[in-house]
Amino acid sequence: MEGASVDHLAHERIRAEFDVEAMKIAWAGSKHAVDVADRMARLVASDPVFKKDNRMMLGRKELFKNTLRKAAHAWRRINELRLTEEEASMLRIFVDEPGYVDLHWGMFVPAIKGQGTDEQQKKWLPLAYKMQIIGCYAQTELGHGSNVQGLETTATFDPKTDEFIIHSPTLTSSKWWPGGLGKISTHAVVYARLITDGKDHGINGFIVQLRSLDDHSPLPGIVVGDIGTKFGNGAYNTMDNGVLRFDHVRIPRNQMLMRVSQVTREGKFVQSDVPRQLLYGTMVYVRQTIVSDASKALSRAVCIAVRYSAVRRQFGSQDGCPETQVIDYKTQQSRLFPLLASAYAFRFVGEWLKWLYRDVTERLQANDFSTLPEAHACTAGLKSLTTSVTAIASLTYTVCNLSITVFQSCLIHYVETVLLKEAWALTEVLGMALKNVENYVVAMDIFVAVGFLSYLLSMFLPALTKEIMLFCFCSCNSSLSLCAAEDWLKPSVILEAFEARAIRLAVNCAKNISKFPSQEEGFSELSADLLEVAIAHCQLIIVSKFIDKVKEDIQGHGVKELLQILCNVYALSLVHKHLGDFISTGYITPKQGALANEQLRFLYAQVRPNAVALVDAFNYTDHYLGSILGRYDGNVYPKLYEEAWKDPLNDTVVPDGYHEYVRPLLKQKFTVSRM
Amino acid sequence: MEGASVDHLAHERIRAEFDVEAMKIAWAGSKHAVDVADRMARLVASDPVFKKDNRMMLGRKELFKNTLRKAAHAWRRINELRLTEEEASMLRIFVDEPGYVDLHWGMFVPAIKGQGTDEQQKKWLPLAYKMQIIGCYAQTELGHGSNVQGLETTATFDPKTDEFIIHSPTLTSSKWWPGGLGKISTHAVVYARLITDGKDHGINGFIVQLRSLDDHSPLPGIVVGDIGTKFGNGAYNTMDNGVLRFDHVRIPRNQMLMRVSQVTREGKFVQSDVPRQLLYGTMVYVRQTIVSDASKALSRAVCIAVRYSAVRRQFGSQDGCPETQVIDYKTQQSRLFPLLASAYAFRFVGEWLKWLYRDVTERLQANDFSTLPEAHACTAGLKSLTTSVTAIASLTYTVCNLSITVFQSCLIHYVETVLLKEAWALTEVLGMALKNVENYVVAMDIFVAVGFLSYLLSMFLPALTKEIMLFCFCSCNSSLSLCAAEDWLKPSVILEAFEARAIRLAVNCAKNISKFPSQEEGFSELSADLLEVAIAHCQLIIVSKFIDKVKEDIQGHGVKELLQILCNVYALSLVHKHLGDFISTGYITPKQGALANEQLRFLYAQVRPNAVALVDAFNYTDHYLGSILGRYDGNVYPKLYEEAWKDPLNDTVVPDGYHEYVRPLLKQKFTVSRM
Ligand SMILES: Cc1cc2nc3c(=O)[nH]c(=O)nc-3n(C[C@H](O)[C@H](O)[C@H](O)COP(=O)(O)OP(=O)(O)OC[C@H]3O[C@@H](n4cnc5c(N)ncnc54)[C@H](O)[C@@H]3O)c2cc1C
Ligand SMILES: Cc1cc2nc3c(=O)[nH]c(=O)nc-3n(C[C@H](O)[C@H](O)[C@H](O)COP(=O)(O)OP(=O)(O)OC[C@H]3O[C@@H](n4cnc5c(N)ncnc54)[C@H](O)[C@@H]3O)c2cc1C
Ligand SMILES: [Ca+2]
Repeated sequence: MEGASVDHLAHERIRAEFDVEAMKIAWAGSKHAVDVADRMARLVASDPVFKKDNRMMLGRKELFKNTLRKAAHAWRRINELRLTEEEASMLRIFVDEPGYVDLHWGMFVPAIKGQGTDEQQKKWLPLAYKMQIIGCYAQTELGHGSNVQGLETTATFDPKTDEFIIHSPTLTSSKWWPGGLGKISTHAVVYARLITDGKDHGINGFIVQLRSLDDHSPLPGIVVGDIGTKFGNGAYNTMDNGVLRFDHVRIPRNQMLMRVSQVTREGKFVQSDVPRQLLYGTMVYVRQTIVSDASKALSRAVCIAVRYSAVRRQFGSQDGCPETQVIDYKTQQSRLFPLLASAYAFRFVGEWLKWLYRDVTERLQANDFSTLPEAHACTAGLKSLTTSVTAIASLTYTVCNLSITVFQSCLIHYVETVLLKEAWALTEVLGMALKNVENYVVAMDIFVAVGFLSYLLSMFLPALTKEIMLFCFCSCNSSLSLCAAEDWLKPSVILEAFEARAIRLAVNCAKNISKFPSQEEGFSELSADLLEVAIAHCQLIIVSKFIDKVKEDIQGHGVKELLQILCNVYALSLVHKHLGDFISTGYITPKQGALANEQLRFLYAQVRPNAVALVDAFNYTDHYLGSILGRYDGNVYPKLYEEAWKDPLNDTVVPDGYHEYVRPLLKQKFTVSRM
Repeated sequence: MEGASVDHLAHERIRAEFDVEAMKIAWAGSKHAVDVADRMARLVASDPVFKKDNRMMLGRKELFKNTLRKAAHAWRRINELRLTEEEASMLRIFVDEPGYVDLHWGMFVPAIKGQGTDEQQKKWLPLAYKMQIIGCYAQTELGHGSNVQGLETTATFDPKTDEFIIHSPTLTSSKWWPGGLGKISTHAVVYARLITDGKDHGINGFIVQLRSLDDHSPLPGIVVGDIGTKFGNGAYNTMDNGVLRFDHVRIPRNQMLMRVSQVTREGKFVQSDVPRQLLYGTMVYVRQTIVSDASKALSRAVCIAVRYSAVRRQFGSQDGCPETQVIDYKTQQSRLFPLLASAYAFRFVGEWLKWLYRDVTERLQANDFSTLPEAHACTAGLKSLTTSVTAIASLTYTVCNLSITVFQSCLIHYVETVLLKEAWALTEVLGMALKNVENYVVAMDIFVAVGFLSYLLSMFLPALTKEIMLFCFCSCNSSLSLCAAEDWLKPSVILEAFEARAIRLAVNCAKNISKFPSQEEGFSELSADLLEVAIAHCQLIIVSKFIDKVKEDIQGHGVKELLQILCNVYALSLVHKHLGDFISTGYITPKQGALANEQLRFLYAQVRPNAVALVDAFNYTDHYLGSILGRYDGNVYPKLYEEAWKDPLNDTVVPDGYHEYVRPLLKQKFTVSRM
């Protein structure tokens, strides 16, 4: 990839049993996607303004200023080169620095697109597209996160002036966390309780200007600032997550986002005939983005970990031969390879979600909602929307959880050294998992969205019908017929096992809930169990999408074979990890579980010679990875050594503070202690 | 605890069903221990020099200088107040900032104590005790971590001058990571390959002066510096982890640590009759410290998480009532309470290890080793030493792993907000897990140290004796007789289940190993499974030590009862987590597993009213916790808000960089993009 220096991992790359270029296409989705990513990644990597390696050494202010510089430069390049939307968003990905632009493009624009009327879109979107205004998404408050319905900020309609008065009545109503808010945004979509004529109509979105377009000072009645330095050198400290308070700030009535609900000139609150489910659109979009971001973060971490594990040698040297590569240790493989497989699994499920989002959006737009009764809409096109929300909710949960696992694994295990030394990729994972998603709460959505639980509950509540009995009987009493370890390689076997586990856990849980005096009580008492059902459910989705992917027509020598292996690694490592679920629901025996584990070892052996090539297929530049341990050429040690000397602490041989605080101590100015 | 302001958690504290003051004693070990900790914690908290809250805002150099200042001030106070060793080390704990002193007292001094001869101790320890020299522990090299036997630095004896020549022959032989080395230490214990007369005698320790005691400049032939900024704002950046290279540096012969091996004036290499196992002493000491540090870090994180979960409210508000405290959600409890129980479990097992270390040391010192053949020594007093090493190895592994779990949990779950905003306690956990311990490698020690595996192997290799058959039969075919959820509360039931799981997993593993052509191959192929056996083994130790603790005579209303509940939470949450192990070894049935999970819910309900009081019993000051979310008085929101404004980014309303990088963009100096 880069440079012309010696490739210390060449011996690994030669061993690959598949066509890496073809795998790049399978990973990226198309030849076109590979090309665009490749061009944008090189563009960024070769531009000195986008240098990343000094980030750890900058104070908050310099770090932040440097981010502003990068954002402006990126925008200039996007314009100069007349990049397409696809190219521009790729370029931003490779600039790889959280900043106000992410919220502008990722939340502010989609909110207006999703919740604004046609006129509102016509007015605001061109300004936003040209960045003549910069926007953020101001929902979360100091006292209110997951519970959006509990927000306290008010937007009270004043019919006299045809305005809304935006106000922060309490300390806990201060907006808190929105990215881009602290120092940069000129505008925000602010979520607030709509009040007309003394009546509370719940949460709605409003476009509010925050700062003067002339001198950037906050407008009257607005107090705004940054919430302070966050954990992790740099990363989210390049972002101005902000705090915001309103003191009776007035905005015109037409700045309420009115696609779904409106307030008339007279102050009447009206619901439009656009089905509320359409609002899910933005949510689906945002969550799908999160899944895709998380899979990116996971693959970066895995890429670093695999390469460094191939470079790093420890123990096992005999008569002067080099030591064993740590990637050859089975313990290392059992930590790394499931995560490598997960990176691929998430990539494919993310692509599927993107497709689903487009598909659902198109189908919805084809309908004329004014003529569709809401109930009808629910069954037809909306059914798949709901499914997608569910899927996304579940997947977001799993993906974020798994990102944490890779973070954790990197932590203790293979890149022990990485973590305290260089952690860009990992910090990103962290940010990912924390941002926007309240995982547990999201997982609970599954039940709410699909009505899955009430469906199951209905099965076990007193009036059991014969059909339902039959259904339960069929799906709950069979067991897996499998005698040899190789049988675990069959997609049908894997799929059945995951299906059986998911449905039986759910059935058990529903049975237990039915024992409580009320459904609510059971639901709340057993919520931890429900969570486990949710996890089982979404792992099933991921496994089945991976299996579908492998069935597709995939080009390139060995590519399909390797994807099949990764798919099996992903599934069987989950069987091992959740063995208690699989066995206790009675579908598989302990013996069969042991066979899965045995098969897993054989699969690891098949992954091993391909491991480095499999992470090469992500096609990440060294600039994007931002990790010495993960360098493409494996030339780790000289670079680590070289970098160390650049630390400010090495500016002088004798450190600042020596004369005041160390020398007196050594020269024993103190009396001898009693020790 | 501090201040006189309103206690927002008073309603929680009133609910406690036990005597918190008595629990403090149970936690700390004695009334005396509580008093010392209390005095030292207040001393630190009330001293402005020890302020911690500006750490996030300092650049590396200022941060480091500030640490030097704190260390000097602590030393001055220790001397002025004529503190005892116990008090001094408590004070250092509460200063709570990693620094060169930790390595000086924690590694340099113990290494000399453990590996130095009496004369060497007499010469060097007084200098170290008075801090007339400052030392570090320089073992790890750029290319060599866990594999100490692979170190490349050489110490070649020169009989002409009666000196050793310390040399770094390669880049990878550079010392890399030692704390305190980068900028401060005047001396180091350096580990290097001893070479006499062309012969390599393996790794030995040497006391080497690194810097001038006059002007602190590195001595001739020595290149030394800091390895650079690490991940996490502050925390380990207060430490000067260092890099060090030697170019033929000469030291007198008597600076080799010669308790175990000597080099004579003539250059002869001699092994002393002190059994090598004695060397384990330092290792045991250091590992025991790590267990205790890790339990401290875990309890801090849990304290913050529990308090914030009691303050934080989300959802469930009805008719204007406040929302539900998030600690009331069962999902939250199922994440928090096992960790709370683990904090107690680790505290007690740590105390037990400390006792074991003292006991073993005393017993060893009572023997006259010059008359003891090594083989003999192995069986007698040393047997318990080996056990302790094993125990410590295993426990270190588990504790560190669990600290990561709490870190992880904090991450995604209850203190979502904490992490990116304030992470002192958590960073410490991180450092803990990464430092000194290579977890996986350590876990492998179990088998090596106890010979446990070869014991098991011998059972299944061809020559099976009748006795062994019988043993296996007895211990492997029984199963748990348990019908009601309450039966899971019996210590005997818990202990049996953990024992059966540990032994059966080991037996299965040994059986599988015996199927391989050679034992080595089996060992290496199944190392991931062996690791799981190791984990089962050390969880058994922790559970059994917790059970022992509860059996002791414990004072105070309700204290014993609460500890019993926590012990059961610890054990049953592990049964649930590792259900696959427990069921597949055939000792418990899926039904019994479900009962354990059911019982766990009842236990959570019993913990709930006591949760805040249980973390209060750790007796941590707000200064030590260093967390706004974890404040004793629960007054979170006003303080978060207040702190935000202190960030450097809020120094000006319009940020640095606005005029260069934001205004031109808003004023549309660029041509319109194609988007
Ligand atoms: C990096 C970052 C960037 C962000 N950017 C933005 C932004 O641009 N705009 C914006 O508006 N917001 C932003 N946020 C805020 C984000 O939306 C919230 O953090 C998120 O909604 C979760 O809310 P919370 O942090 O208040 O957690 P809370 O809702 O207070 O939850 C705390 C914990 O309580 C538990 N809990 C809560 N409710 C329940 C329940 N019903 N059942 C069981 N357990 C429960 C959960 O375990 C949860 O972890 C950002 C946050 C971060 C970390
Ligand atoms: C904060 C911090 C402070 C430190 N302070 C000091 C100090 O004061 N003095 C000092 O001398 N050192 C210090 N160290 C270094 C520390 O001792 C090493 O990090 C530790 O010994 C692990 O070595 P390593 O990092 O080189 O990992 P490696 O040994 O390279 O291991 C890398 C990975 O390879 C795998 N692996 C290695 N061997 C095997 C095997 N046989 N089987 C299976 N898997 C294997 C493991 O998963 C491991 O995680 C410090 C480190 C840190 C992070
Ligand atoms: Ca920093």
